[in-house]
Amino acid sequence: MGKMVHVGSRKVGVAPGTLIHIGKKHLTEPKITVIDYNVDNFQELVAENIEEVYPFKDSENVSWINIHGVHQVDLIEKIGIHFGIHSLVLEDIVHTDQRPKVEFFDSYIYIVLKMLQYDKDKEELIAEQVSIILGSNFVISYQEVIEDTFDPVRDRLRSSKGRIRKQGPDYLAYALLDSIVDNYFVMLEKIGENIDALDDELLDKPTPKTLEDIHHLKKELIFLRKFIWPSREVVSSLQREESFFIKESTSIFLKDVYDHIIQVMDTIESYRDILSTMLDLYLSTASNKMNEIMKVLTIIATIFIPLTFIAGIYGMNFEYMPELKWHLGYPVIWALMITVALVMLAYFRKLKWI
Amino acid sequence: MGKMVHVGSRKVGVAPGTLIHIGKKHLTEPKITVIDYNVDNFQELVAENIEEVYPFKDSENVSWINIHGVHQVDLIEKIGIHFGIHSLVLEDIVHTDQRPKVEFFDSYIYIVLKMLQYDKDKEELIAEQVSIILGSNFVISYQEVIEDTFDPVRDRLRSSKGRIRKQGPDYLAYALLDSIVDNYFVMLEKIGENIDALDDELLDKPTPKTLEDIHHLKKELIFLRKFIWPSREVVSSLQREESFFIKESTSIFLKDVYDHIIQVMDTIESYRDILSTMLDLYLSTASNKMNEIMKVLTIIATIFIPLTFIAGIYGMNFEYMPELKWHLGYPVIWALMITVALVMLAYFRKLKWI
Amino acid sequence: MGKMVHVGSRKVGVAPGTLIHIGKKHLTEPKITVIDYNVDNFQELVAENIEEVYPFKDSENVSWINIHGVHQVDLIEKIGIHFGIHSLVLEDIVHTDQRPKVEFFDSYIYIVLKMLQYDKDKEELIAEQVSIILGSNFVISYQEVIEDTFDPVRDRLRSSKGRIRKQGPDYLAYALLDSIVDNYFVMLEKIGENIDALDDELLDKPTPKTLEDIHHLKKELIFLRKFIWPSREVVSSLQREESFFIKESTSIFLKDVYDHIIQVMDTIESYRDILSTMLDLYLSTASNKMNEIMKVLTIIATIFIPLTFIAGIYGMNFEYMPELKWHLGYPVIWALMITVALVMLAYFRKLKWI
Amino acid sequence: MGKMVHVGSRKVGVAPGTLIHIGKKHLTEPKITVIDYNVDNFQELVAENIEEVYPFKDSENVSWINIHGVHQVDLIEKIGIHFGIHSLVLEDIVHTDQRPKVEFFDSYIYIVLKMLQYDKDKEELIAEQVSIILGSNFVISYQEVIEDTFDPVRDRLRSSKGRIRKQGPDYLAYALLDSIVDNYFVMLEKIGENIDALDDELLDKPTPKTLEDIHHLKKELIFLRKFIWPSREVVSSLQREESFFIKESTSIFLKDVYDHIIQVMDTIESYRDILSTMLDLYLSTASNKMNEIMKVLTIIATIFIPLTFIAGIYGMNFEYMPELKWHLGYPVIWALMITVALVMLAYFRKLKWI
Amino acid sequence: MGKMVHVGSRKVGVAPGTLIHIGKKHLTEPKITVIDYNVDNFQELVAENIEEVYPFKDSENVSWINIHGVHQVDLIEKIGIHFGIHSLVLEDIVHTDQRPKVEFFDSYIYIVLKMLQYDKDKEELIAEQVSIILGSNFVISYQEVIEDTFDPVRDRLRSSKGRIRKQGPDYLAYALLDSIVDNYFVMLEKIGENIDALDDELLDKPTPKTLEDIHHLKKELIFLRKFIWPSREVVSSLQREESFFIKESTSIFLKDVYDHIIQVMDTIESYRDILSTMLDLYLSTASNKMNEIMKVLTIIATIFIPLTFIAGIYGMNFEYMPELKWHLGYPVIWALMITVALVMLAYFRKLKWI
Repeated sequence: MGKMVHVGSRKVGVAPGTLIHIGKKHLTEPKITVIDYNVDNFQELVAENIEEVYPFKDSENVSWINIHGVHQVDLIEKIGIHFGIHSLVLEDIVHTDQRPKVEFFDSYIYIVLKMLQYDKDKEELIAEQVSIILGSNFVISYQEVIEDTFDPVRDRLRSSKGRIRKQGPDYLAYALLDSIVDNYFVMLEKIGENIDALDDELLDKPTPKTLEDIHHLKKELIFLRKFIWPSREVVSSLQREESFFIKESTSIFLKDVYDHIIQVMDTIESYRDILSTMLDLYLSTASNKMNEIMKVLTIIATIFIPLTFIAGIYGMNFEYMPELKWHLGYPVIWALMITVALVMLAYFRKLKWI
Repeated sequence: MGKMVHVGSRKVGVAPGTLIHIGKKHLTEPKITVIDYNVDNFQELVAENIEEVYPFKDSENVSWINIHGVHQVDLIEKIGIHFGIHSLVLEDIVHTDQRPKVEFFDSYIYIVLKMLQYDKDKEELIAEQVSIILGSNFVISYQEVIEDTFDPVRDRLRSSKGRIRKQGPDYLAYALLDSIVDNYFVMLEKIGENIDALDDELLDKPTPKTLEDIHHLKKELIFLRKFIWPSREVVSSLQREESFFIKESTSIFLKDVYDHIIQVMDTIESYRDILSTMLDLYLSTASNKMNEIMKVLTIIATIFIPLTFIAGIYGMNFEYMPELKWHLGYPVIWALMITVALVMLAYFRKLKWI
Repeated sequence: MGKMVHVGSRKVGVAPGTLIHIGKKHLTEPKITVIDYNVDNFQELVAENIEEVYPFKDSENVSWINIHGVHQVDLIEKIGIHFGIHSLVLEDIVHTDQRPKVEFFDSYIYIVLKMLQYDKDKEELIAEQVSIILGSNFVISYQEVIEDTFDPVRDRLRSSKGRIRKQGPDYLAYALLDSIVDNYFVMLEKIGENIDALDDELLDKPTPKTLEDIHHLKKELIFLRKFIWPSREVVSSLQREESFFIKESTSIFLKDVYDHIIQVMDTIESYRDILSTMLDLYLSTASNKMNEIMKVLTIIATIFIPLTFIAGIYGMNFEYMPELKWHLGYPVIWALMITVALVMLAYFRKLKWI
Repeated sequence: MGKMVHVGSRKVGVAPGTLIHIGKKHLTEPKITVIDYNVDNFQELVAENIEEVYPFKDSENVSWINIHGVHQVDLIEKIGIHFGIHSLVLEDIVHTDQRPKVEFFDSYIYIVLKMLQYDKDKEELIAEQVSIILGSNFVISYQEVIEDTFDPVRDRLRSSKGRIRKQGPDYLAYALLDSIVDNYFVMLEKIGENIDALDDELLDKPTPKTLEDIHHLKKELIFLRKFIWPSREVVSSLQREESFFIKESTSIFLKDVYDHIIQVMDTIESYRDILSTMLDLYLSTASNKMNEIMKVLTIIATIFIPLTFIAGIYGMNFEYMPELKWHLGYPVIWALMITVALVMLAYFRKLKWI
Repeated sequence: MGKMVHVGSRKVGVAPGTLIHIGKKHLTEPKITVIDYNVDNFQELVAENIEEVYPFKDSENVSWINIHGVHQVDLIEKIGIHFGIHSLVLEDIVHTDQRPKVEFFDSYIYIVLKMLQYDKDKEELIAEQVSIILGSNFVISYQEVIEDTFDPVRDRLRSSKGRIRKQGPDYLAYALLDSIVDNYFVMLEKIGENIDALDDELLDKPTPKTLEDIHHLKKELIFLRKFIWPSREVVSSLQREESFFIKESTSIFLKDVYDHIIQVMDTIESYRDILSTMLDLYLSTASNKMNEIMKVLTIIATIFIPLTFIAGIYGMNFEYMPELKWHLGYPVIWALMITVALVMLAYFRKLKWI
């Protein structure tokens, strides 16, 4: 988790518009899939080389080009040039540490969001950049490596379920955004379950591990918040902006996505508050326990230290100690000791320690 | 309480507008009641099947259709289609984890709020979604399971008390909102009583249980705040928005509801501040107590440890220890010990420990 | 103080506009006084029955009707109906847990503020609702029970001091607001004095009582803030709103009241900051003291525990312990003990403990 | 410092516009100086009586009337009436606990700021009110007692250095504001030096005095902030407001003053953050030290307490204790004791305590 | 680091527009370089005296005059007068403790930013002021002493890489801003690495040094934030302001710089949150450790103190102690002691201490 806020080495001094991939480099080949559809027709292909993609620029149907793997910079550049995309945008696509944002151009809209996944091995959240170019008759989406959360959208396209095949590329873009945001709920649910488990643990038997787990969750929420907060703005702009590319009928759906993001943010804030409350409770409980420990020590010590002193007195070897010769010396000392102990106990009772 | 911020499993990848009930599924049959009224007439019926409800769409009176139980999805859908309600709205009605919101459509207004109830068995707050559709001559309200907080409104309709029978559906919708918000005060009052009780306990005899109770209340306030904060916006929009469905004479009543919500929010904030203050006081008191405990231990130990050492010295069995033979050895040692103890006590007095 | 944020039992489900007095019911009779004046004339009377008040509605002079005691609901209602006041406003007047607010109507302005008083017996702040109705030629003010802070205004009216007799009812309303806000300064001054006293106590000899007092003051500031913060908005609205009822010449005086409220708020914020700083200082001082206590205990214990152990060794009764027979055994042991103690002391000095 | 947030006794119930001096009353005579100048001419006089000042109202040059000492209320009133100043403004001038503010009137602008000084004897900041009246051809400034920070402005006027003699009264007012704000930097510098010194002390040898000093600085910053924050607004209004009295050429200089105040605010915020960080460090260091102390105590005590117990066993006087007769009893016990001590030490090493 | 927030001694009372260098005075000669270029031509020179620079004011190409070292005030003034720069601007250039800002004049734009560098010897961040004057055909940049971060821009100009030679002075100014902001990422990366290292250290083996390092990083972030926060506004103004000096084609590049600054700010905020979380974890861990230490002490002490007391009893020298004569006295006492110890251990187990 410690590494999550790492800022990638930026290419200081390089001319803007120069395409340099920054991110985790992966050996796998990039995979380009194209889906071209309208109400009646549906075509799906996996492009072997880039040229196969070019004709879809002028397709009369809606074309969705999905590029999985953005590290092969020249590929991104060629497609970009063919579809008339600004070099700064291409730079942002391959430079995968962008902040979520939306930019409106004359011939397309550029959207950057973060897709999240929970890595079970390392027990940490992974964020991946998703770029979406929404043109007048096409959508190009760029992903990094996470297994495809866009599959349900593909299924709906294939089976022509719902209204998706009857709508334009703006609705497709909405569907992609929606599936990304829906995924945030899955992440939150996971964190929520962890919080519930920790909460039970906290009341039952808190350990130092509980503390570390609370901090770990706090860091994950800082991480989530950093990516989701700007997403709110992105969807809000998309919905408000009067754009040639987004029909009014789609706008109401974007409002729906916006509501979901707000709900995610609300939940993150509640989680943060609850974690703070849990941390306070942990610390207070620890401090209470310390109090208990100190009380036990103090009661035992303050009772026995004076008694031991008395015993020490009569363990001295002076020749002339009259008490030692008294016949009742021993029982009298016992009586004295018991009295001292009882007075101590009464005092502690008065102080409400016992 | 731990479960309260749980985000329901969202139906990732499902086409928007698909009606899937998300919430606590209940076995009871949904119950549909209709009240149709104007100044002079009043009709009330419990619908056995959905078709009975249909004619009220075109009633010339004000019709209030209340649906108790939203898990029977097809029922919701049929009525929705008949009354011309958008599929996304229907989805939100059955999907009962919405954030409070208001949406303005051409032929109706859609309002979502949360109704709160205190579950005495589990000692926790329960939130339930209430959806209200305000049309030109009808109001449809959807509830989950809580016993009916709308009864007083029904009574006023039946007995024609106040102005309610003389007004349109907007006033009815206001009356429903008002009864929901009035209920928030009941919840707050309960929390307020708990805070007062805890405050007395805190000054009297704080226990670790007190601490847990403070945290429990803090969590409840986080929970309340999450639902009530967006409600403010809802009522504010209703009041400001110039809508065909809300008459100006009703607007002043909505202002009143708005004032109440602000007051609820103010009180929640004050409660939060006071709980923080109480938590601080608890911790400081605990730390003071620790100080007291340590002081007692230290005073007793630092007085008796040196004395015990002196006793230990003259308990040694060396053959050649001249003091042991002295006739006044024993009383001299007692004098020494008492002197040491007095010096210690004087020192502690100087340090203002005693 | 614990009771101060209590929300009164609201009349859940009652039709809006139903007058139910909520607040502390008092047995005393309500007292109605009327002052009717212009530059030249001045008339003052205590109304025996409500009808005496009615004619002043159409008086050509400025009439100030002050009603002390709002629990007699029918009285408030009758006057309200006569002066044409909306039923929701009347409800707010008798329902004395309103948030400070201002509402503009066609024929009058309705203002709610809180008057504060310090109850010396219970050592807590009391807030009381003051409602003011500003009409075109009259002002009606409603108070609860606090002794009259409006007396100075009456005196100025009687003696025709300042410009008050030359001005209209808006200036009278301003004068009432001003006397309420001036009273806030008196409250703040009291709190300020308490803070100063606590600050001295904190540096001189802090006790657990100091801590409770700091928390008590913090709660009082939360309480003050809750009432004064919305007052700011009230006066600001009155000043900005272009109203038929408020002349421009009065507006500059309202600006003055506004400045005073801002100053009150600033001071409250500063007090909060200072109390937080004092709390921090208290806790740090307590923790420093604990450190001191622990140091003393540790120094004494770690010096004498090893020495006592050595003494214990030579107190053993083994038959064959050669040291016990040595002629110099006893002085050698003393030398050893002194060496151990000195080494310990040197070590503590190195650690900068002594 | 404790007294710094004290709110002066307000004159509750007094008619507005009544001039009552509130502030520290000083026995010295008020001193009135007049400087009348244009590019070519320069006249400076100390007025013996008020009437000498009157003619400057209609002087064709720029006249600067500086009144040092505002407790002589009738003097302030006479000049005020002559120069046509509103009675509420005169009240604010003599009532020296105003919040910094600016008010625009038809024939003049009224500005209130605070001048700060460091009292070396009491080691605390002193704030003093400065009022400035900017008319079409005159500036009247009112000060309390601090030695004159306006002297450099006077010197520039006398020597005709810079552009000041060529400009109008608005530039003169700017010069006065600028010298007040420049003085804030001197105060900040002093605080900055104290922070640096404390920071060194904190890393070197923190004492309880360090803690008190940090809190003292925190309070001073609360104090500073309270006065400087509203000053920002004052200068901003002056600069933005299109006023007959402020020429555009002066506006750019006011922008400069505004930038300085923003910088002062930034620095105050940074100082607050740094002080919080220092406080945290202090507390953590104290807690670390406590840990160290406890560790030493625990190591010594847990090693020697069992050993002392063993010695105690063989110091018992039972007649039948076989070990006491063994020839090797004594060395065996020594071996046992050393073993116990070594085991303990190994255990502590494992716990990384030593 | 302690010195970083130091406010330079301001020249109180000096006439505005007087050029006084405030900053670190350096003995090195200022160095003036000029680059004059268009698409086809490129000329670079190091000016020996100021007069060489003058002709470039009217060059038809784009001229970039870079002045390294601003302490030689007369040089700055002469160039300033030649290029028609306002005296207040010149004052800000040499007075190197400005807040980042932008000012729009009729014939040029004045930009102030901070350049950051990490001083490896002192292990602290250094901030240096960079002023940029953007005119219609020239850019003048002023730096203090840091080795040149503008070198990559020079290289791109020399080699005519990218679009820089084809664009006007606005693009050059953008390139300078971009290289400054890119440098912020380098600083952040360094801090991020330190945070990661500290995070590992924290979980592995935290020491008091860890704590100091966390605080050191917190201070550095306060320092960074103070300079970068206003930079956001600067770039935002440049981008929004419709200025004659900035072409629309450059505006999109400025948007890019703006996005970077937002990202820097986001990262700073996340770092702050994470450092707070780490500090909490450190303190909680320390407190947990204390708990452990206290537990060990308490367990050992409370077991052995009573046992030692028992041993002490039978070490007393009373003549008449019947137990001492019992044949089984010694083993019985051992049995008693072992019982006491076992009971204690059982009790601690019940308390879940062991």
